[in-house]
Amino acid sequence: MTKPADLTPRPLNPAPPAPEFPWPNGKKSALFIGFDVDAETAWMGNRPENADRMVTTSHGGYDARVGTAKILTLLNDLGLRATFFIPGWTVEAHTAMCESIVAAGHEIGHHGYLHKCPDPTKPDEARDEIDRGMAALRARLGVTPVGYRAPSGENFAALLAYLQEQGLRYSSSFRDDIRPYRHRLPDGRPGPVEIPVNYAFDDWNFGMTSRVDPRPIFGRDAILPIWDEEFQGMHDWGGVTTMVLHPQVSGRPMRWRILRDFLAGVAARDDVWIATGAEITAHFEACETSARVAGAERDTG
Amino acid sequence: MTKPADLTPRPLNPAPPAPEFPWPNGKKSALFIGFDVDAETAWMGNRPENADRMVTTSHGGYDARVGTAKILTLLNDLGLRATFFIPGWTVEAHTAMCESIVAAGHEIGHHGYLHKCPDPTKPDEARDEIDRGMAALRARLGVTPVGYRAPSGENFAALLAYLQEQGLRYSSSFRDDIRPYRHRLPDGRPGPVEIPVNYAFDDWNFGMTSRVDPRPIFGRDAILPIWDEEFQGMHDWGGVTTMVLHPQVSGRPMRWRILRDFLAGVAARDDVWIATGAEITAHFEACETSARVAGAERDTG
Amino acid sequence: MTKPADLTPRPLNPAPPAPEFPWPNGKKSALFIGFDVDAETAWMGNRPENADRMVTTSHGGYDARVGTAKILTLLNDLGLRATFFIPGWTVEAHTAMCESIVAAGHEIGHHGYLHKCPDPTKPDEARDEIDRGMAALRARLGVTPVGYRAPSGENFAALLAYLQEQGLRYSSSFRDDIRPYRHRLPDGRPGPVEIPVNYAFDDWNFGMTSRVDPRPIFGRDAILPIWDEEFQGMHDWGGVTTMVLHPQVSGRPMRWRILRDFLAGVAARDDVWIATGAEITAHFEACETSARVAGAERDTG
Amino acid sequence: MTKPADLTPRPLNPAPPAPEFPWPNGKKSALFIGFDVDAETAWMGNRPENADRMVTTSHGGYDARVGTAKILTLLNDLGLRATFFIPGWTVEAHTAMCESIVAAGHEIGHHGYLHKCPDPTKPDEARDEIDRGMAALRARLGVTPVGYRAPSGENFAALLAYLQEQGLRYSSSFRDDIRPYRHRLPDGRPGPVEIPVNYAFDDWNFGMTSRVDPRPIFGRDAILPIWDEEFQGMHDWGGVTTMVLHPQVSGRPMRWRILRDFLAGVAARDDVWIATGAEITAHFEACETSARVAGAERDTG
Repeated sequence: MTKPADLTPRPLNPAPPAPEFPWPNGKKSALFIGFDVDAETAWMGNRPENADRMVTTSHGGYDARVGTAKILTLLNDLGLRATFFIPGWTVEAHTAMCESIVAAGHEIGHHGYLHKCPDPTKPDEARDEIDRGMAALRARLGVTPVGYRAPSGENFAALLAYLQEQGLRYSSSFRDDIRPYRHRLPDGRPGPVEIPVNYAFDDWNFGMTSRVDPRPIFGRDAILPIWDEEFQGMHDWGGVTTMVLHPQVSGRPMRWRILRDFLAGVAARDDVWIATGAEITAHFEACETSARVAGAERDTG
Repeated sequence: MTKPADLTPRPLNPAPPAPEFPWPNGKKSALFIGFDVDAETAWMGNRPENADRMVTTSHGGYDARVGTAKILTLLNDLGLRATFFIPGWTVEAHTAMCESIVAAGHEIGHHGYLHKCPDPTKPDEARDEIDRGMAALRARLGVTPVGYRAPSGENFAALLAYLQEQGLRYSSSFRDDIRPYRHRLPDGRPGPVEIPVNYAFDDWNFGMTSRVDPRPIFGRDAILPIWDEEFQGMHDWGGVTTMVLHPQVSGRPMRWRILRDFLAGVAARDDVWIATGAEITAHFEACETSARVAGAERDTG
Repeated sequence: MTKPADLTPRPLNPAPPAPEFPWPNGKKSALFIGFDVDAETAWMGNRPENADRMVTTSHGGYDARVGTAKILTLLNDLGLRATFFIPGWTVEAHTAMCESIVAAGHEIGHHGYLHKCPDPTKPDEARDEIDRGMAALRARLGVTPVGYRAPSGENFAALLAYLQEQGLRYSSSFRDDIRPYRHRLPDGRPGPVEIPVNYAFDDWNFGMTSRVDPRPIFGRDAILPIWDEEFQGMHDWGGVTTMVLHPQVSGRPMRWRILRDFLAGVAARDDVWIATGAEITAHFEACETSARVAGAERDTG
Repeated sequence: MTKPADLTPRPLNPAPPAPEFPWPNGKKSALFIGFDVDAETAWMGNRPENADRMVTTSHGGYDARVGTAKILTLLNDLGLRATFFIPGWTVEAHTAMCESIVAAGHEIGHHGYLHKCPDPTKPDEARDEIDRGMAALRARLGVTPVGYRAPSGENFAALLAYLQEQGLRYSSSFRDDIRPYRHRLPDGRPGPVEIPVNYAFDDWNFGMTSRVDPRPIFGRDAILPIWDEEFQGMHDWGGVTTMVLHPQVSGRPMRWRILRDFLAGVAARDDVWIATGAEITAHFEACETSARVAGAERDTG
């Protein structure tokens, strides 16, 4: 049971805004390439009745049959490392696919177990998702993740505390900042680092449509200018551009090419730090320790 | 309690159409730059259960952490003053952010308390939103607003009368005209001035998408031509171009740049009056007093 | 009461496909410029609870305050005549606006009374809409319309028969052909002529968004190429391009300009017959009489 | 009755990924031009109450009156053969139209009877759709189809087995691969061949909007670059580009031209095998028999 929503005026995210700190080696901004390898869980985690609908879940099946391999090839061609957030169910259902990601040297992040949207009214379920996802990553891949991206992009205070307890050092789900910051837990203690996402880089917004969720889809001329300018703007501001990609979208032929061209453009620059979530977190933590993180004035209302 | 909807044929807005009157200094049209600084209220005012959903509300948290400061920088760089409509809850939750808006010399407008959509079946709630919003602006910012923009863009006759009673001299919510006009209250007395909005300048239409409200998003090539041509058309007609912007949208990197380029284009012209809502209202009122407002023929059915 | 849906296989529209017949004066295709002057009825005809929501209905209020006058100016500038389908409620609520349309020499068509979507399960309501709409047009404008466009674009067999009984010689609502054809009533008798619409020319698809119906909106670069090419394709096929415009959309500054440029382009051609619905119907009827209408082979299943 | 969804981790499609095999004559990829000739069933198969709504179903009526004939002309002009998936109801309601497709030498595929979305909780209904659809194709057209495309694009394991039993050698509905593969039935036996579809080539995504399903629509500049680049990407990967077209969409004037230009572009190449579903299936089967299909490593979790 949870108590009714507390509408008392205060920042609903109690964490102070992102502090100032330098990126490594004089870089002006960071690019965090994140993939959510949901596979079928994107379609039946929150809607279990879809598990028997083979075409609906076949969108997710593309991950294991085609998409992830194509993405790995792309990253290899460009010499880039990324972070792959994988639900425990996907690890168990498609172990060989997940092993290939590990083998290619990419970071593996936690993405729940069945991709259930964290629900503040069901804290036990949310914790169970963490436990089972962690167990699957350890048992099948021998990986203990340090990063977490919320399935369906949702989170709540008690879950942040639980992430911290379980050793997850960073989260990458929030939409409220342009640079990493440290969460503050309900009891005032520091929580995980947040590497906030940029929803303009969620490929689902442009390239997924289905019977159960019809949406318009867009091509290169609509997407690449958005990505290029959003990146340039973020770069000018010294932030982190956090991508929310999915092999079942960006592993499709045209979308793979659009992603390739965007990434190649950034990779060709010498003023951008392309890093995994773990690397960004480690850098942030090191800055905190060495006091290179400037105290940010809190907006306390 | 309210009575059932009255479907008697008559203009549902009893106010006469906008009268003819000149813009100051021979300008041909006006630009009214309005921001709604909803912060988290955009996400939980009408859906309080979202208050515990930290990622959903993090869209709104961007206002206080990043967006508003970026917008203030932009306006300062261009030497422009704007009107910021702020819900009372936001003033109380993010007082420092709001103080920075005041300190930069911009107008503060009323935007309800918890951003509840005015509901004609709940007039007491709607009045309470006005009272509490007014109290918050006065207590925390020392500001008594003269302008009001309806949260969620809705209004009804009894609320217009109440706005008038509470000293609000203008509203900026209606979609039915291209120039300011004076509302007529149910009893026939004059109501507040209306500075009608142009929904093509609501950045939410182009740049916001979320788990709870998935929508397509668009970039520069889709937006700037719309804004430029809509503005030019309105200019040709001698109207007011009223923008409905949000720091949580236009304070994002790419959108900030699109807004910058649009505003810079208008600011470079010498035939446009860029003014706050209060200034436009004062001008309209002065024209009324000096009889420069020509009587407009009423469409009385 | 109506009987359950009849799913027996047969063309659900029993009318034969459009016959072959020549356009007048050797023209290769026809352009039918139709406006639906819904005013507030678009927002509260099917949702009466919106009648008290002044901003929602203010979209419709734009018709009477600004939009229709702008459209009349545009048509006058281009020397074009069009057909305006007006609900009875709108005629009674905004009589002066409607009189100005009549005075400008345009055709007035029937568009229901309160813009209620014709519902096959409520035939009495649908007939009442016809009766009251007809009465309003006669009483207030002295007009007896010959054409009908279904509010919300819906129709059913019994309503087609009733249109015929009431002297309405044509309908312009169906999406199933590219040239006019004659309806067949349930009892096999001929019904009204249909001038089928082209939904690519419904401006609502591109230019309307609201709190109660959020939709993406588009500008010149998205719309004008669609209209130009759709028109050219229809012209090549010798059909009729039937527009479904609304002053509350196309009477907005940018959209007015887009419409102007499209219409000017067609008007500059010498191979297109720009005609009202009544003119097209009269021509079709004359061709029928003179046997210039070739018998079309029926697809009888 | 069916049992509750089985969430056990395993690929929800038990078929191994598409094997490697060569396209005929050294071609690098294949193009499968598929049309769904739903006619009215698209609008009332899943919503029988729409059967009385003549404008809603008139979208589908366009197939028989105009669209299919236009598509046949286009294919004839380009010298291309395609596959037309037709529901049994449509065959019975519009027999002459369907006969014209057969007469033009195109392949006829199975598309259910009333276009009911296959529902795993209603297996009897799904089987009945197969039986009645098959009977209609045989009785009215003298055709025994070898291919099946799921109405509303859905499928489930028991239905795949039933397709196999009924002699359907291929399905073209799944979204999970880029090359043909063979289904595996629940009991482990081989099922039909799957020719997976590419939803970027579903014209409904770009060109259909209606009262009951309002959606944005797009023109040439948005569509053709998507199709061209998606095709080129698929070609580079050696896959099959499977189109999901509808005469009620692509038979409209502008969309017909866009489709024409796309198809003409592919037809002008000498490295693409343009083939029907039956031809692709026969080729795949021949490769299997001749052992030219390389065993693909299965992702077994």
